[in-house]
Amino acid sequence: MSASILVVGSVAFDSVKTPFGEAHEILGGSATYFSVAASYFAPVRVVAVVGKDFSDEHLGVFRKHKIDIEGLTRVAGNTFRWKGEYGYDLNEARTLDTKLNVFETFNPVIPESYRSSEYVFLGNIDPELQLRVLQQIKRPRVVACDTMNFWIKGTLDALKRTIQHVDILIINDSEVRMLGDEANLVRAARKVLGLGPKTLIVKRGEYGVLMFHGNSIFGAPAFPLEDVYDPTGAGDSFAGGFMGALAHAGEINERVFRRGIIFGSVMASFNVEKFSLERLTDLNRAEIDERFRQFKALTHFEEL
Amino acid sequence: MSASILVVGSVAFDSVKTPFGEAHEILGGSATYFSVAASYFAPVRVVAVVGKDFSDEHLGVFRKHKIDIEGLTRVAGNTFRWKGEYGYDLNEARTLDTKLNVFETFNPVIPESYRSSEYVFLGNIDPELQLRVLQQIKRPRVVACDTMNFWIKGTLDALKRTIQHVDILIINDSEVRMLGDEANLVRAARKVLGLGPKTLIVKRGEYGVLMFHGNSIFGAPAFPLEDVYDPTGAGDSFAGGFMGALAHAGEINERVFRRGIIFGSVMASFNVEKFSLERLTDLNRAEIDERFRQFKALTHFEEL
Repeated sequence: MSASILVVGSVAFDSVKTPFGEAHEILGGSATYFSVAASYFAPVRVVAVVGKDFSDEHLGVFRKHKIDIEGLTRVAGNTFRWKGEYGYDLNEARTLDTKLNVFETFNPVIPESYRSSEYVFLGNIDPELQLRVLQQIKRPRVVACDTMNFWIKGTLDALKRTIQHVDILIINDSEVRMLGDEANLVRAARKVLGLGPKTLIVKRGEYGVLMFHGNSIFGAPAFPLEDVYDPTGAGDSFAGGFMGALAHAGEINERVFRRGIIFGSVMASFNVEKFSLERLTDLNRAEIDERFRQFKALTHFEEL
Repeated sequence: MSASILVVGSVAFDSVKTPFGEAHEILGGSATYFSVAASYFAPVRVVAVVGKDFSDEHLGVFRKHKIDIEGLTRVAGNTFRWKGEYGYDLNEARTLDTKLNVFETFNPVIPESYRSSEYVFLGNIDPELQLRVLQQIKRPRVVACDTMNFWIKGTLDALKRTIQHVDILIINDSEVRMLGDEANLVRAARKVLGLGPKTLIVKRGEYGVLMFHGNSIFGAPAFPLEDVYDPTGAGDSFAGGFMGALAHAGEINERVFRRGIIFGSVMASFNVEKFSLERLTDLNRAEIDERFRQFKALTHFEEL
């Protein structure tokens, strides 16, 4: 039995337009993508807030994946809504509208039964709230954390306080450069590691992932796909696969981290193949393992 | 003894400005970078044109690397000059000035002693000239070829005729998308393979390389560097290391191609660490092999 993973983040209704189609108010949010991806590897517990418009039907996805929703609070008001679109390069979303709704006053309360979770992922929310989560729980084996430009610009001090308590920071390359205040990614990464995290994972979208861990660097390309329909949730699916693989392995070392990055990349690659959670909710372990093997074939070369 | 490599391309004087410094009229050009990089692996023969301003001192680099310069013609006029600058991201050069000079009437004549070269690299020149090179030589074991947006836009028919005779096309990702007329890189690559080459190598700068070969894809990250001073010549250094490794191996198969891509990435990573050819002319095989091993450490993860 794998150790449990606690995720705190957003549950949202997304309206997404890509060059290949569009979808209106479909289930999304960082906690959702993360927990579904992680659920293929280990038990997941979610802390998030939804509104009265969040139906039992919407809970179906969480139930299907046996995700513990004791910490999913339903309060008066509407669920967080995000509307965005992607151009042909699919690398960056243009946000058209954000309605925080019930998320505006989100104050994560960690249920008693979640407090000794060994693996914790702090989704991209206000760093003050991320810290409050850590204050409510027993010191986990691994705390991983996401953030974004908005918090790096707006609440840098709070963010720095939070990531002092974080083992693994998982952010994209432009965020590393901004947080490290340095154009060269390797130098920026070293500066970010100086802020506290022992490990920095840099997401580079279609170009893959780099991990900085002590003096070691690991690099993996993204899985080359002929059909990319909707990149929404790729980062959180990556984090879910990564943390899931860690919890499943039970060990904490670079070997496990590297395999975790491949599992994370596998989950992200499935996620972007269809809209919303369509593909991510419809997988099995054999498919996941097969794509892991394809990653090995993709990257293998013989030693000198 | 490795088989010989023939390269046809430009020899130039480059004036380059980066955020880290600038250099005025230093030795450059595709044939120069390629042949120095390849010279660590196999004998190289160069076909290019220079002007009367190209001194014996400038020949020193070629002599130091035992590059055969029988095909390096000196004619009346000035040597090709390129002036460009890079911003902080170092990903794309902005060309400030180009003076073709003697390169404008370049008509490559392949010396008799070069005509049975087993490995041939057609640097980024007019595709009509690339084809004329192939018409003058005995069918080589491997023909690799570079090109650029300028030829894809301006002389597409000629380019298509040329690459029908090419085994390995080595171009960057935006060129693949333009030549394949398709935004998705994997689909674009398949379309480019439909034009004739059995292998397509896609250069993605700081993000590494993808190789498409039949139904197989190989991906490698670039070597993460703390100091990137001058990206000029990275693509040609890559091609030089790649072709050098092929000629040295003597076999033509995917295993050799994959290792060639790593050797190419090694040479490109050294090249960008200093201005012009400074680092590339000052290497030894032990340093090259050590960085190859670092690439293995960078990309290794355990199988399932």
